[in-house]
Amino acid sequence: MTRAQLFGQIQKKSSYLCIGLDTDLEKIPKHLLTTADPVFEFNKQIIDATHPYCVAYKPNIAFYEALGPKGWESLQKTLEYIPADIFTIADAKRGDIGNTSSLYAKAFFEHLNFDAITVAPYMGEDSVKPFFYKDKWVILLAHTSNPGSSDFQLIESVVTGRKLYEEVILKSRHWASSDQLMYVVGATQAEKMESIRALAPEHFFLVPGVGAQGGDLQMVSTYGMNKQCGLLVNAARSIIYASTENDFAVSAAAEARRLKNEMEKHLSARL
Amino acid sequence: MTRAQLFGQIQKKSSYLCIGLDTDLEKIPKHLLTTADPVFEFNKQIIDATHPYCVAYKPNIAFYEALGPKGWESLQKTLEYIPADIFTIADAKRGDIGNTSSLYAKAFFEHLNFDAITVAPYMGEDSVKPFFYKDKWVILLAHTSNPGSSDFQLIESVVTGRKLYEEVILKSRHWASSDQLMYVVGATQAEKMESIRALAPEHFFLVPGVGAQGGDLQMVSTYGMNKQCGLLVNAARSIIYASTENDFAVSAAAEARRLKNEMEKHLSARL
Repeated sequence: MTRAQLFGQIQKKSSYLCIGLDTDLEKIPKHLLTTADPVFEFNKQIIDATHPYCVAYKPNIAFYEALGPKGWESLQKTLEYIPADIFTIADAKRGDIGNTSSLYAKAFFEHLNFDAITVAPYMGEDSVKPFFYKDKWVILLAHTSNPGSSDFQLIESVVTGRKLYEEVILKSRHWASSDQLMYVVGATQAEKMESIRALAPEHFFLVPGVGAQGGDLQMVSTYGMNKQCGLLVNAARSIIYASTENDFAVSAAAEARRLKNEMEKHLSARL
Repeated sequence: MTRAQLFGQIQKKSSYLCIGLDTDLEKIPKHLLTTADPVFEFNKQIIDATHPYCVAYKPNIAFYEALGPKGWESLQKTLEYIPADIFTIADAKRGDIGNTSSLYAKAFFEHLNFDAITVAPYMGEDSVKPFFYKDKWVILLAHTSNPGSSDFQLIESVVTGRKLYEEVILKSRHWASSDQLMYVVGATQAEKMESIRALAPEHFFLVPGVGAQGGDLQMVSTYGMNKQCGLLVNAARSIIYASTENDFAVSAAAEARRLKNEMEKHLSARL
C-alpha cells in the first residue's frame, strides 16, 4: 500500500486506529475453542466487527509462532481475510544479517503479503535494507514504550550528544524515504513525542501503548500528528478482549468505535 | 543443557564447533528436491555426517519461516532428529515486550525444545528476561560481525565512555548468571575479542563469521578462549554447502572434521 492510499483510508474513515491481533487461546471466549481454527475464528469475528473503525491490523507474530505450524496457518487465513483496503503490519521485530533479513522479508511480504513489518535496528543498515520492497513498509523500532526501553535506547552518544533512539532515526532516514519507512514511537511524554516529530517531520509513527498499556491518545495526537496525519495508533487488548463473553465482537466494535470517534475529533482539528 | 554438560561435550569431542543449519532450497543438491521434505532430508544427512565433529547445531529460523507452515514442520523434525547430547540454538534474534517475549520463549523452548535462542537487546531487560528458563540459554547480540554492526553498536556513551555493545554486556550480566547467558561476538580483530573477553570472563561466546563470512579461528581461539573453553564457533555455508553434488554430506563431514582438528589443537594448548 502506498502512502497516498494509506492517507486516503485515514481520511475516508476518519481514523488512524490500528488494532493489534494479539490472539491468545487462553483469553478468547471458551465457546470458540471447539471450532476447527479458534484463532482464525476469533480474528474473523473481530475483523467483521471492527473494520469500519480502523485503518490497520497488526498481528503480533509471537502469538502465532507459539502455536507451531497451525499458528502460521491461522495467520495466513487471517491475512487473506482482512479487507484489501486495510493496512497490515507484521509485528515481528526481526533483523539479521543481509541474506537472512531477505528471507524474513520474503516470508512476510511475499508469502503472507503484509504491507509492513516491524524491524529491530541493533544490527544496522544491512540488516534493515532487505525489507525495503516497492509499496511495502519497514517500521523501525526507535523509542519503545516498555520499561526496558531506557536500558539502551536512552544512551547518549559522546560524539553527537544524541540518544540512541535519535541516532536510529537520523541514520535510518538515509536508508529509504518516508514512503517506505515508519518508526515505532511509544506513547510516553508530550515533550518526547514533540522532539521525535521534529526529527522525522514527514514519517508515519506506529504508536503502541495506547489502551491496555496506558498512554494518552490526546497527547499523542496533539504532539505527534503531521499534515498527512502521520500516526497509526495501536490498541490490542483493550479492544479484542473488551469482553471475554459471547458478545466479545460487539464489545470490541464499541471500543474501536469509541477510539475512532476520539480520533475523528483530533483529525478534524488538524487536517 | 547445563554449562557442565556443554563443557563435558566440548572435552569429550575436542571441539567447540557449531554448525549453522541455514538450509536453503535453492542451494541444496537437486536430487533432494523430489523427496517429501527436502529441507529435513538435507538436514538429516548433514547431521548424520557431521555430528561426531560438532557440539552444537544452529538452525537460522528465517530459512524455515520463509517456507511457511511446512518450514516449521521441517524445523521440528530436525530438532527431534538432533542427538540429545548436542546443544541446539534457535538463531531467531527475537525480542519484544515481556508478554510477547514469553510467547517466543514458549515457541522455541517448550514446543521445539531448543537449548538456546539468540535475542536482540534493543528493548532492554524486560524483553530479555522471559527467555531465562532453567537449563536453557539466552544468547544476546553484543557485537555482531555484519557491516551494519558499526552503525549503532559502536556508539559511545557520554556517561560511561563505553560503546553500546559494551553497555549491553555490562548491563545484561546482572540479569542472569553465566550459566544462562551467552553473547554473540563477531569474529573481528584480536584486540576487540580480547577486550570483550575481559568484560565477560566467564561467559560463553557464540562466534559467527568463521568460514564463509571470513574470520579467523586461530585469533578467536587465542583471544576468546577461557578456562571452560567459553567458545562456540559457528560455520554454516562452508560446511553444509562444501559440495552441492551427491557427495554433499561427505564433503560437509570433511570440512567439519578439518575445523574440529584445528579446534583440538587450540583446546589442548589451553585446557
